Amino acid sequence: MTSDDSGVKKLVAAYMASYQKTPEINKLEGADQIDRDAILGVLERLRGLIFAGFFSPKPLKGDYVEYYIGELLENVTDVLRRQIKRALLHFPNPPRDPARESASITQRFLERVPDLRDLLATDVDASFEGDPAAFNKDEIILSYPGIYAITVNRLAHELYLLNVPLIPRMMTEHAHGLTGIDIHPGASIGHHIFIDHGTGIVIGETTVIGNHVKIYQGVTLGALSTRGGRLLDGVKRHPTIEDHVTIYSGASILGGATIIGEGVVIGSNAFITRSIPERTRVSVKNTDLRLMSEKKEPTSDTLQEEFWDYVI
Amino acid sequence: MTSDDSGVKKLVAAYMASYQKTPEINKLEGADQIDRDAILGVLERLRGLIFAGFFSPKPLKGDYVEYYIGELLENVTDVLRRQIKRALLHFPNPPRDPARESASITQRFLERVPDLRDLLATDVDASFEGDPAAFNKDEIILSYPGIYAITVNRLAHELYLLNVPLIPRMMTEHAHGLTGIDIHPGASIGHHIFIDHGTGIVIGETTVIGNHVKIYQGVTLGALSTRGGRLLDGVKRHPTIEDHVTIYSGASILGGATIIGEGVVIGSNAFITRSIPERTRVSVKNTDLRLMSEKKEPTSDTLQEEFWDYVI
Amino acid sequence: MTSDDSGVKKLVAAYMASYQKTPEINKLEGADQIDRDAILGVLERLRGLIFAGFFSPKPLKGDYVEYYIGELLENVTDVLRRQIKRALLHFPNPPRDPARESASITQRFLERVPDLRDLLATDVDASFEGDPAAFNKDEIILSYPGIYAITVNRLAHELYLLNVPLIPRMMTEHAHGLTGIDIHPGASIGHHIFIDHGTGIVIGETTVIGNHVKIYQGVTLGALSTRGGRLLDGVKRHPTIEDHVTIYSGASILGGATIIGEGVVIGSNAFITRSIPERTRVSVKNTDLRLMSEKKEPTSDTLQEEFWDYVI
Repeated sequence: MTSDDSGVKKLVAAYMASYQKTPEINKLEGADQIDRDAILGVLERLRGLIFAGFFSPKPLKGDYVEYYIGELLENVTDVLRRQIKRALLHFPNPPRDPARESASITQRFLERVPDLRDLLATDVDASFEGDPAAFNKDEIILSYPGIYAITVNRLAHELYLLNVPLIPRMMTEHAHGLTGIDIHPGASIGHHIFIDHGTGIVIGETTVIGNHVKIYQGVTLGALSTRGGRLLDGVKRHPTIEDHVTIYSGASILGGATIIGEGVVIGSNAFITRSIPERTRVSVKNTDLRLMSEKKEPTSDTLQEEFWDYVI
Repeated sequence: MTSDDSGVKKLVAAYMASYQKTPEINKLEGADQIDRDAILGVLERLRGLIFAGFFSPKPLKGDYVEYYIGELLENVTDVLRRQIKRALLHFPNPPRDPARESASITQRFLERVPDLRDLLATDVDASFEGDPAAFNKDEIILSYPGIYAITVNRLAHELYLLNVPLIPRMMTEHAHGLTGIDIHPGASIGHHIFIDHGTGIVIGETTVIGNHVKIYQGVTLGALSTRGGRLLDGVKRHPTIEDHVTIYSGASILGGATIIGEGVVIGSNAFITRSIPERTRVSVKNTDLRLMSEKKEPTSDTLQEEFWDYVI
Repeated sequence: MTSDDSGVKKLVAAYMASYQKTPEINKLEGADQIDRDAILGVLERLRGLIFAGFFSPKPLKGDYVEYYIGELLENVTDVLRRQIKRALLHFPNPPRDPARESASITQRFLERVPDLRDLLATDVDASFEGDPAAFNKDEIILSYPGIYAITVNRLAHELYLLNVPLIPRMMTEHAHGLTGIDIHPGASIGHHIFIDHGTGIVIGETTVIGNHVKIYQGVTLGALSTRGGRLLDGVKRHPTIEDHVTIYSGASILGGATIIGEGVVIGSNAFITRSIPERTRVSVKNTDLRLMSEKKEPTSDTLQEEFWDYVI
C-alpha cells in the first residue's frame, strides 16, 4: 500500500501553515541545532574514559590502552567543540569568537575529568560499603543506576560551572530518563555519595550536598515553592545537606535556607522545611495505622464494596 | 566455542511443547503483529514534524523544509496505515474493509496534528513560566521529560478518540519508560499544562484535566479501588481537575466523582478521595515530626543498633 | 574543525596518570569483560522465545516457527556460555573448568524457561483481570511495564539460583531503567502477580512473595535499615508477602522478620515494620487534611507569599 499523494500534499500545506502560525516551537531559520545524539555519544565515550576497560569492546592492554584513550579523547574533543559552540550562540549576547571560546571550554572541561575519577572512586566505595546486596565493585560500576547518575551529574556540573548552556541539562535529563534520578547540573555534590535504587529522586539546581551522604529512592531536595516562577531564577531555592547525612526513601527537604546538619538521619517520608541541628534523627512521629480484621474471603472483590479507608 | 547441537535440539523440542501447552501468550497463527519499532519510529517522526527543526539531522531552510516535512509525512502515513490496519483486526468485530478504515483514520489523525502544535506551544510556555531553572524555551523542547510525555499523550489521545486499539498505549508506555510519567491515552488534558520532574506520575484513563494545571513528580490521579476488576471497564474511575489547579509532589487524588475545583492548591503527599471546593488550599495538617538528639558519632553503624523509628 | 594535537596529547598523559592513581575503577589488566550489549541482546531474544510471535519481525507459521526458535536458542546458548564464563571468573575462587561449568549452567537455565512461560501466563491473566483499562491480553504483553519487569526478574532469578554473579543484576537493572521497577534477582515471586504502573517499586534481594499478589507504583519491600552495611550480606533483610495480598501505591513494608499474612490489604502510603495477621486491612488512620479557603485569584503568584503549609 502506498499513501495517497493528494492526502499527503494537503497535510504538507497544513503543516507549513502551522509553522507560520506557531513559530515559537520550530527552528526554521536554518541555524545549526545542538545534536542530541552527538551529546549522548560524548557521554558514553566519557564513561569509557572514566571507567576505562569496563565498557570497551575488547580488552584494554599494553599499547592498546593509549591508542584507545587517544581516539576517544580526539573524538570527544571534536564533538564538544562543535556542539558547545552551537550552545554558546543561544546566549542573548554570544561571545565574539564562539569557536575559540568553545575550544577553550572543551579543553578545560576535559582536563577536569581525572579529578572527577578520584571523586567517582569514592562513590563506588560508598556504594559497596553501604549495600549488602552488592557482589563486588565491578557490579556497581556495571549496573548501579546511582553510579551512572552521579557520573553524569559530575560531568554536567563541570560544564555548568564553565557556563555552557543547554548541554549540561541534556546530559542530566538523559540520565534521568535512564535511571529515574533527576539531579540538576547546578547541584554541587561532595565525595563518598551513595544513591540507592534512585527512582524518583529529585535534586534541585541550587542544592549543596556534603561528603558521605546516603540518599534513597523517592527523595526530593527541592524548592519550598516555585510560585514565584521566573523571578526566582538565580536565588538559592534548594537545601544544604552537610556531611554524613542519611536521607531515607520518600523524604522531602525543601527550601534554600534549610540546612541539614552533620550526621543527621532523616526517616522515610519526612517532610522538612526548616533546618535540623547536627547529629539529630528526624522521623515521622507515628505511623498511626488502623488494622481491621476482615471476615470476607480475600478473593471476594465486588463492585458493591465501599473503598474502606481514607475518608477525609 | 559453538553450542552443542544435541543440547539445542532438546531445547527446541521443549519450547515447541511449551507453545502447545501455554498457547495464550504466543502468536503462532501467522497473523501480522503490530510492529513496535515501526510505531516508535512514527513517534520520533511526529516529534520531528511538531518541533520542526529541533531534531532534524541538518538545518531546515528554504525549500528543504517542505521536502523534509513531505518525506516525514509520506513515511508516517504509510507506516500508520499498515499498523492501524493490524490493530483494527484485534477488535472482536473488525471493520469490513480494515485497509480503507485505517487509511481514513490515518488521514484524520494527521490532520489533527497542527492543532496539537498550538496546544503544545502553550505547554512550553507554561513550563518556561513555571520553572526558574529553565535557561530558555529551547531547553524545554530539547530536554524536559514533561514536554515529551505531554507530546506523546496528545498524539496517543487523538488515536484513542479515533478508536484505534493497542497503538495508543504502546506510545504512552514508551513515554512512560523514557520519563517515568504514565499518562493513559484516554486522559483528556487542557492547554498550558506544566509537568515538572515527572517521575512517578500516574494519570488514569478517565481523568479530565483543565487548563493551566501544574503537576509535580509522584502525583497519582487514580481510581479509588480497582477491586471491581474488569467490571469497571468504561466507568469514570479517575478524578476531574479544573483550571488553575496546582498539585505538589506525591499527592494522590482518587475517584471518578472527585472534582478538584478551580484554583485549588493540593500540598505534597495529600491523599484526596472527595471533591475540593474552588480556591481552596489543601495540605496534610501537621507533619508531626520527632527529633531526637544523638550522642553517637555518625559513622558508628552497628548491627546491634535497633532501627530507631516507625514502630506501629 | 579538527582538534588541537598538543591539547589531546596533554589530555592522554593526564588520563594515563589518573589510571595509575585510581586503578580501582579501571580494568586495564586485559581480562575479557562481560559485554553488556550481548546480555541485553540475550534478554530480547529470550523475550522473543517466551512470547513467541509477538516480537518477531515476520509472522511465525508452519516450519518457520521451529527455524526461528532454533536460531534464537543457538544464539542465546553461544552468547550465554561466553558471558557466564567471564562472570564466573569474578569469584574469588573461580571453578576449575569455567567453560564447562558455564555450558552446564547455560543448558540448565534454558531448560527452565518453559516453566517460566507457565508462570508468566498466570501473570498476564492476573494483569488482565486486575486492570479495567486493559483492551486485551495482547496489549498487556506488548506494552505493560509490569509484565516486562516480571519477565526479566523471573529469568534473572533462575541465573541467581544457578549462582551466576553479575549478569542477573545487569538484567534487572536494565528492566529497572526501562520500567522504574527495581526487583533484585534474589527476590522469589509466586504465580499470578500483578504489578500496576510500577514506577518507583523497589523489591529487595531476600523478599519472598506468594501467589495472587497485587503491587502498585511506589511500593518498597525493603530492609529496616542498612546501617549494618556489608555485615548484613546473606541475612534475610526483606519481608515475606503471603498469598492474595494487595499493596497499594507508596506503601513501604520493611524488615526480614515482617510477614504480611494471607489476604491482607495494605493501604496507600502505609509504613509497616512488623507482621500483619491474615485477612486484615491496614490503612493510615486519618489523612488529617487542612482545607483553607482562599481569597486571592489563583494566578496571583508572588514572591512575597509565604509557603503556606508544612511548618514543623
